[in-house]
Formats: sequence, C-alpha cells, structure tokens
Amino acid sequence: MADRFLRRAARTQGKAGEVVRKRTARAVLEQELIADGDRILIAVSGGKDSTVMAWALSRLKQSLKFDYELAALHISTDFCACCKKSVLAEKLEGWGIPFTDLFVPVVGRLKPGRKMNCYWCSTQRRTELLKYAVENDFNKIALGHHLDDIIETFFMNLCARGELSAMPVKIDYRKYPVTLIRPLAFLEERQIIACAAEQDTLKAACTCPYGIHSQRREMREKIAALTGGSGAVKRRIIRALTN
Amino acid sequence: MADRFLRRAARTQGKAGEVVRKRTARAVLEQELIADGDRILIAVSGGKDSTVMAWALSRLKQSLKFDYELAALHISTDFCACCKKSVLAEKLEGWGIPFTDLFVPVVGRLKPGRKMNCYWCSTQRRTELLKYAVENDFNKIALGHHLDDIIETFFMNLCARGELSAMPVKIDYRKYPVTLIRPLAFLEERQIIACAAEQDTLKAACTCPYGIHSQRREMREKIAALTGGSGAVKRRIIRALTN
Repeated sequence: MADRFLRRAARTQGKAGEVVRKRTARAVLEQELIADGDRILIAVSGGKDSTVMAWALSRLKQSLKFDYELAALHISTDFCACCKKSVLAEKLEGWGIPFTDLFVPVVGRLKPGRKMNCYWCSTQRRTELLKYAVENDFNKIALGHHLDDIIETFFMNLCARGELSAMPVKIDYRKYPVTLIRPLAFLEERQIIACAAEQDTLKAACTCPYGIHSQRREMREKIAALTGGSGAVKRRIIRALTN
Repeated sequence: MADRFLRRAARTQGKAGEVVRKRTARAVLEQELIADGDRILIAVSGGKDSTVMAWALSRLKQSLKFDYELAALHISTDFCACCKKSVLAEKLEGWGIPFTDLFVPVVGRLKPGRKMNCYWCSTQRRTELLKYAVENDFNKIALGHHLDDIIETFFMNLCARGELSAMPVKIDYRKYPVTLIRPLAFLEERQIIACAAEQDTLKAACTCPYGIHSQRREMREKIAALTGGSGAVKRRIIRALTN
C-alpha cells in the first residue's frame, strides 16, 4: 500500500510544474513575449501566480536559445505587514532572480476624505512599478495574470461596461519605453495552484484586507456556468482573444 | 373585477408593440440600416420573429422622413407542408407588404448518400433568397435575427470555435449588389414574443422536423447564467458587438 503510494507520488512528482513550463514556453514563443537580451522585471506579489511565473521564467532560460535577464520587484504597501518577504526573497534568489522590495505608502497618499479602493491602489502600485523599471533599465515587465484572469476581465468588460476588450498578452506602453508581458496567459488557475502546491510556494501568499473582489468572484461563477469548467473551451476563448 | 381586468387590458394594449417599434426605429437610425429609396426584401419564415419584423418595418414607414419599399419572400421547402401561408399572406398584405412564396426542393437537391442538416438547408435557402433579391431589384434583405440570436451566435463562435466574431447588424455582400440588415438586433426574444402574442401572430408559425438545435438551446441556458437574464446586460453586450 505504502509502496504503491510512493510509486504514484514519484510518477506525478513534477507533473504540474511540467504543464506550467510547457504552457509558459508556448506563450513566450507563439506570442513572441521575450527576445534576446531582454531585461525583464517580474512583478511579484508574494502570491502563487507571480511566484510560479518567476520559477517558470527562470526554468525557461535553460531551454531557450536566446538569453535574457530576470529580476523581481515586490511593492509593499501599508497592508503588507504580514508578508513573508524573506521566504519569497530566498526562493527567488534560489532560482537566480535578484529580489527588491519597494515600500509605497498608499494610505498616506490618499487625499483627505477619499476612501481606499482596489482600482486606485493598483494604479499607484503600477505607476511605481513602471518608474522602477524605467530607472533601472528594464525593457519588459512580466505580470502574473493567467487564463482565468484574462477571461474574467474580458467578460466583465463585455457584460458590465459594454466593451469588447481584453487584457493584452503583450503590449507596449506609449508613455514609457517598456513592454508589458503576461507569460501565464495560456495557463488555467488550477494548473498554477497545482504547481504551487507541488513546490510548496502557496505559504508565502500575501493578502490585503480590501481585496475581496466580490464582483469578480461572481463573474467567475458565471463563467464556470458558461464554459462548464472546460479547459478546452477556455483555451478556445483565449485563442480568439489573442488572435 | 371584470372592469378592473378590462381597464388593465386597455392600459397594456399595444405596449409590447410600442417597445418593438421604438427599438426597431433605434436600430434602423443608429446603425443606418435603411436609406431613402431602398427596396427591401423581408425574409419571412412564418415564425414570430420575421412576422413581427415585417409589421415593425411597415409601421416605421409612417414615422420616418424617408421612403422605402417593402416586399416579403417566403421560401417553402419539402418540410413546409403545414405552413399557414395564406394566413401569413393575408396579414402581410394587410400591412401593405406584397407576399411571394417560392418553393425550393431541398430534399431533391441532396446528393446521394448525403444526410439533411440545418447548415446545408439554410445555405440552399439563403442562396435562393439572394438570387430572388438580385433578379427583382431589391438592394436590401431584412433578416429577423434578434438580440438573443446574435449573442448566442457570438458565444458559440467564441466557446466552440475559438473565434471572436458576431452576426453583423448590417453587411454588404461581396458577390451580390445586396446589403443584409437585421432590424431586430436591439430586441430581446421575450419582447418579440410579447408583441406577437399581442397581435395574435404566433399561430402562423411554421416548424421543421430537423430544427432541434440542441447545441444552441444549451448555449442559451449558459448565457442566461452569465447575464442573469438581464436585458441591460444583453444590451451592453450588443453595444460592444455593434461598436
């Protein structure tokens, strides 16, 4: 019994990581996300998505024919006291990715009478990320949005705003000499969770007391009804959105 | 009690027709579906959608500043024996729309060993419709697809084929000097059903033994889960698709 359990564990060991590695490679090559000589800044939150992405991009360096540099930036806010940054830094440096932590006092920046909201806070953090990239000569920023994030945003834009627009897998900033890339675009969240569990990275997740996103969670359930939870259907949707 | 019922009936009388008239007018004007001097051929199946559209286009002639001609073509097939064409012809002629019936022997056109299917049959009928329009100097063909049809087709293309494409509200044929228009694009099916019930047109519907469309019905239920059946959400989607 124990033998059988061990054999099964050995057989599945690394399987989720392999799925992540392959689908990240496909996104990078098909969508031409990375070029020789790129200096890529990975935006790491401490959560599963960006951590798994950092791992996949460091693994990918070993198999691609061209070379690129990786570094990770974590933006700390007033809500980030609990974040296990040292664990994250250790993990990333183990993969050869230098780690920087930048504190942005979002609460102190709020104008009198204004309430905190996710949109405003993320704009603040995005601006700091861009400034840091430009000042430190990074030409690309990698964000950890996955297939489900992209589909959800597409449907929220469609159903709530009446707009046909999707998070691009790759986009040049007009104002900055920087390109945004989303190397996890072809991966479902459940595949990332499986990979994070395999590597024990879930424990370093950092949470925010405001980050409830009830509207997004509701949309997630509606999309599950539409796709029947089928990965094949979701991949057809992402194909339509990236073509 | 009877009095109250009659008062209520008088108050709601014509309300559904008013909704259809207004939303058809909006589609026609916003999307520039009709121009002065157009000769429009209405494709009538005998079902609720095309019959209500014929009524709305004839009503609209009275309120628009430009003039256009209307005529209706019904394509009969081998499956159409039960169709109450005389009822339909009488209704249309009452609205000032001349009616023509054209028989297309779809079964006889099947190559040996081939099975009947909805796609093939509709292609046959569409070709005959186009030929008739060209031969009789119609520059536009009006089809009775409504908001729900257009949304369903969009989601079927997205989820089943991985394509981002929608039925256009107005499109020029490349091969023929004819423009297709869909004046019911801003109307939900339930609004058309209410109008048809108000005018007692539902009884003339013609059915086909092959027309089960189970895939479409399934998609319809999934979309209901996505939109929560909200007309506002559906109209936001159609706005995105027509912009």
